[in-house]
Amino acid sequence: MSAQAPHNTLLIPGPIEFDDAVLQSMSHYAESHVAPGFVKVFGETLTLVRKLFQSTNPTAQPFIIAGSGTLGWDLVSANLIERGENALVLNTGYFGDSFGQCLETYGANVTHLKAPIGDRTPLEQVEQALKEKPYKLITLTHVDTSTGVLGDVKGVAQLVRRVSPNTLVVVDGVCSVGSEEIAFDEWDLDAVVTASQKAIGCPPGLSIVMTSGRAIQAAQSRKTPPGAYYASIANWLPIMQNYENNKPSYFATPPTQLVHALHTTLTQITADVPGRFAIHTEVSDKVKAAVAELGLKQVASYPECQAHGMTAMYLPEGLVPADVLPGLLKRGVIFAAGLHKEIATKYIRFGHMGVTVTDPKRGDVDKALAALKEALAEAKQAKGL
Amino acid sequence: MSAQAPHNTLLIPGPIEFDDAVLQSMSHYAESHVAPGFVKVFGETLTLVRKLFQSTNPTAQPFIIAGSGTLGWDLVSANLIERGENALVLNTGYFGDSFGQCLETYGANVTHLKAPIGDRTPLEQVEQALKEKPYKLITLTHVDTSTGVLGDVKGVAQLVRRVSPNTLVVVDGVCSVGSEEIAFDEWDLDAVVTASQKAIGCPPGLSIVMTSGRAIQAAQSRKTPPGAYYASIANWLPIMQNYENNKPSYFATPPTQLVHALHTTLTQITADVPGRFAIHTEVSDKVKAAVAELGLKQVASYPECQAHGMTAMYLPEGLVPADVLPGLLKRGVIFAAGLHKEIATKYIRFGHMGVTVTDPKRGDVDKALAALKEALAEAKQAKGL
Repeated sequence: MSAQAPHNTLLIPGPIEFDDAVLQSMSHYAESHVAPGFVKVFGETLTLVRKLFQSTNPTAQPFIIAGSGTLGWDLVSANLIERGENALVLNTGYFGDSFGQCLETYGANVTHLKAPIGDRTPLEQVEQALKEKPYKLITLTHVDTSTGVLGDVKGVAQLVRRVSPNTLVVVDGVCSVGSEEIAFDEWDLDAVVTASQKAIGCPPGLSIVMTSGRAIQAAQSRKTPPGAYYASIANWLPIMQNYENNKPSYFATPPTQLVHALHTTLTQITADVPGRFAIHTEVSDKVKAAVAELGLKQVASYPECQAHGMTAMYLPEGLVPADVLPGLLKRGVIFAAGLHKEIATKYIRFGHMGVTVTDPKRGDVDKALAALKEALAEAKQAKGL
Repeated sequence: MSAQAPHNTLLIPGPIEFDDAVLQSMSHYAESHVAPGFVKVFGETLTLVRKLFQSTNPTAQPFIIAGSGTLGWDLVSANLIERGENALVLNTGYFGDSFGQCLETYGANVTHLKAPIGDRTPLEQVEQALKEKPYKLITLTHVDTSTGVLGDVKGVAQLVRRVSPNTLVVVDGVCSVGSEEIAFDEWDLDAVVTASQKAIGCPPGLSIVMTSGRAIQAAQSRKTPPGAYYASIANWLPIMQNYENNKPSYFATPPTQLVHALHTTLTQITADVPGRFAIHTEVSDKVKAAVAELGLKQVASYPECQAHGMTAMYLPEGLVPADVLPGLLKRGVIFAAGLHKEIATKYIRFGHMGVTVTDPKRGDVDKALAALKEALAEAKQAKGL
């Protein structure tokens, strides 16, 4: 039995359903942000972030900052690139557009390589672009929340190291960290930007950024000062280092309750990181098979580019999200409407991450698949399809 | 009986002790940030912020964003002033220094008017400075958390309107909003930057900024684009307007649990805003009389410049914070050490805000004053003073 009030099951691609213990951590009593108890918890949480990223390189540096995932884009754009330098954005939808806007805000020259809807940018095209001019950094979205397309992070990173070894590899992992494998050191990544409320399974309000020693060095060897104050690596670096060394430190008040909740969920996740990815893959395979059985096509067009923590599916011809979502809600299940503007009225999104996947006793996935089948049939009947 | 686990009473100038109902809101079950239930709560919370600021002018605009109070400085610095324009900082300590650094990050020319420790900048000096060159904005700290000095917000705003009417009046209210009166419209302020975890009585993690129509217009009529992306008024304005009009909207995922907690505490506070300030003044008077009785001098040097939500007090000659704070902790009470670098070893800080003040059944203040008396006596004896 859950300790939570009865509610419809939230199966959108974030925020996701939370574990009872995580929500209990959210109501932790008041603590000083510089007292030994909290300093220890914050320090341990930073170390758990390293573990989540399978990183043991001491030059890598995690950041945990009050903010949404979007703040991580500012952290990258205001520190890792300077005005007039080039950025290459592998754009698979909504989030590539926005990351590009953020980079431009801080003065970067942004080139977008737009992939067709439901596909990745081909590596040959990336290689060609990298050879055309020097890029300070390249960004890609690991899982595009708007389409469920899974980027080839490992492949892109390998390509960059071969063709343009000094280009920083920046991953938007907001919708992937915790459900898709990331071997931060082994894949030689420079920054992964994520947030608390998706596969990490903590309520929203934390920007989490993992950076390499190479990225930190880029921030520290800038010719111009960082472009932001709250999102300045120079301002946060000593704070993160001190907390992880069990020393209190102050730049801005950390969100103590959210940090406790993150500590709780990361302790659960990091008990078995490979197992975490395996169960997300297993459940994703089951969902995708069931979706195919219902005759629905995925937005992500072939298996290699399909995320394991969400499924974006086209509706049958003649139906729009508003025909189906209320039927799901009536059955206690919340899916999300489309977000990619060119196809928004044609598809819906099902998030299957975190406790929904790892705790089969909840029965979330079976309930969702049954509800989807019924809601679709009902909607088709209503439309005479 | 509190529902919270037993813990030492947190009486620092933020974070503060939280009400049970507020902490319960923190463990709210997962919700979609664009579903009707949450949209309504977020919209109502924005309206409650207006009420907290005693504002009825429809051109005024509140913002609630995931972040710490510090993020509010970026919101001001990246939107309300442009590169090369002048900013005047009335500097009463640590936070004036930092706000100045933030303004400089975004290209402002900053002039600091440093007040002597424990005092305000005299209005005559402000007037003289305002007449020397055109200032786009002036900032002052309403309550300097490092010293307990209360700024003369109303007086400064009146002076600015008389001498330099187009200069934007920006208040750092992180340590004042909820315990010190602010009549946003009547005093004709342009921006008040605050955070959730002090007198507002919500856990840390929310940046709350109130802006005037004049400030919004300054942001919208910039000659250059805003200096930040996450801290861009242009990006957040439609989101806040939509939510307050009960329409879902997306720029970045709002911290749903923290917004629920803010809704809970603001509902409590705004039931009687004048009563809120009166009780803080009454308890502050009692604390300050007791501190004087113990022979301790306040850092804020005369009554008009002493905050009502905290008291910074010099220790007797020969004692440092580390002599006294452990004795307080032993008695279940947590005070803060000094923060102003020039006098940090000479004083301690006692925060008396929120439920500690409004719920006398808790007995926090009496317990703290008794503990202070005993801990001081013990420390003096140990040092042979």
